[in-house]
Amino acid sequence: MSTLNNFWVIFLLILSISADAFCCSIKGFHLVRNISELPQDDYGMKGLSHITVAGSLLHGLKEVEVWLETFSPGTGTPIHRHSCEEVFVILKGSGTLYLASNTHGEFPGTPQEYSVFSNSTFIIPANDVHQVQNTNEHEDLQALIILSQPPMKPYIYEDWTTPHTAARLLFPVFWDKECLEGTSDKDEL
Amino acid sequence: MSTLNNFWVIFLLILSISADAFCCSIKGFHLVRNISELPQDDYGMKGLSHITVAGSLLHGLKEVEVWLETFSPGTGTPIHRHSCEEVFVILKGSGTLYLASNTHGEFPGTPQEYSVFSNSTFIIPANDVHQVQNTNEHEDLQALIILSQPPMKPYIYEDWTTPHTAARLLFPVFWDKECLEGTSDKDEL
Repeated sequence: MSTLNNFWVIFLLILSISADAFCCSIKGFHLVRNISELPQDDYGMKGLSHITVAGSLLHGLKEVEVWLETFSPGTGTPIHRHSCEEVFVILKGSGTLYLASNTHGEFPGTPQEYSVFSNSTFIIPANDVHQVQNTNEHEDLQALIILSQPPMKPYIYEDWTTPHTAARLLFPVFWDKECLEGTSDKDEL
Repeated sequence: MSTLNNFWVIFLLILSISADAFCCSIKGFHLVRNISELPQDDYGMKGLSHITVAGSLLHGLKEVEVWLETFSPGTGTPIHRHSCEEVFVILKGSGTLYLASNTHGEFPGTPQEYSVFSNSTFIIPANDVHQVQNTNEHEDLQALIILSQPPMKPYIYEDWTTPHTAARLLFPVFWDKECLEGTSDKDEL
């Protein structure tokens, strides 16, 4: 290979590394970031605002992920389950946690209902089917959501009678997909 | 063994399981908890308020832990490192993150300084020596702190010239020690 060709190969290599680093890796973002200035989107889900505060695909985390999500009145998460640990810290508003802890049946069944409120916290047990809804018609529900084993691999239920075997894997989730290109898919599922 | 003896063995077993469950396991606490009502303490460190929002020893988490810590002006964390991932979300106040990213030297050396402020977030890279201080003399600094691989095993430095090899392992950390009794110490270190 000529010297000129070598130059272009190295140049393009550097360019591709820089591009990756800028968008989606730990080298490409300011260490201290203002959450108010982070990108937020509804990702096609009306009433949602999602911000990845600290993430696997965006920031290179391997063991935890932190989201800030805001749900307008009447909206919420899908009915879903996942094998990772999840902690909610409610920052604003109030709503309802629906949790079906019966993992031995063929489908979740009628969930238990828990009131959640500003300054409350709760842990979702691994693999329990759950949904968090803003059931307060007067204000938004905002929560910090902490997850292990990123990126999340949720199984989505149509309703509480959907058999566990019919729940659909949603992967990748709606956000941060732009970072999936160029990453290894080893161990993702 | 007589029937009476059997009765007492079973009774004491149930009592011991109930006691553990009440204090320190996932069976012993309300699912939705008011953070304002959770126990807080300074654990002998003047100016600190620590609350374990969701924890390994307290709540049976295995992969993540969430703390709410408040530092009065002039106080902060020790200089330390750990191999787990850590995310800070600053809720109130402002301060300074000191971070020594040079992990190839014999000691941390002069750290870089970063201003942190209400509504900011930052990730501590694994094994980087760091300290977060409330350097604002007018108000408390409050942060949600998210950690992987609980319980935390920090190595504490006297100052920024302490050799990495002389940093002291602090384990268990100051809080939630009451739950250590009766747990297995397998894989803790």
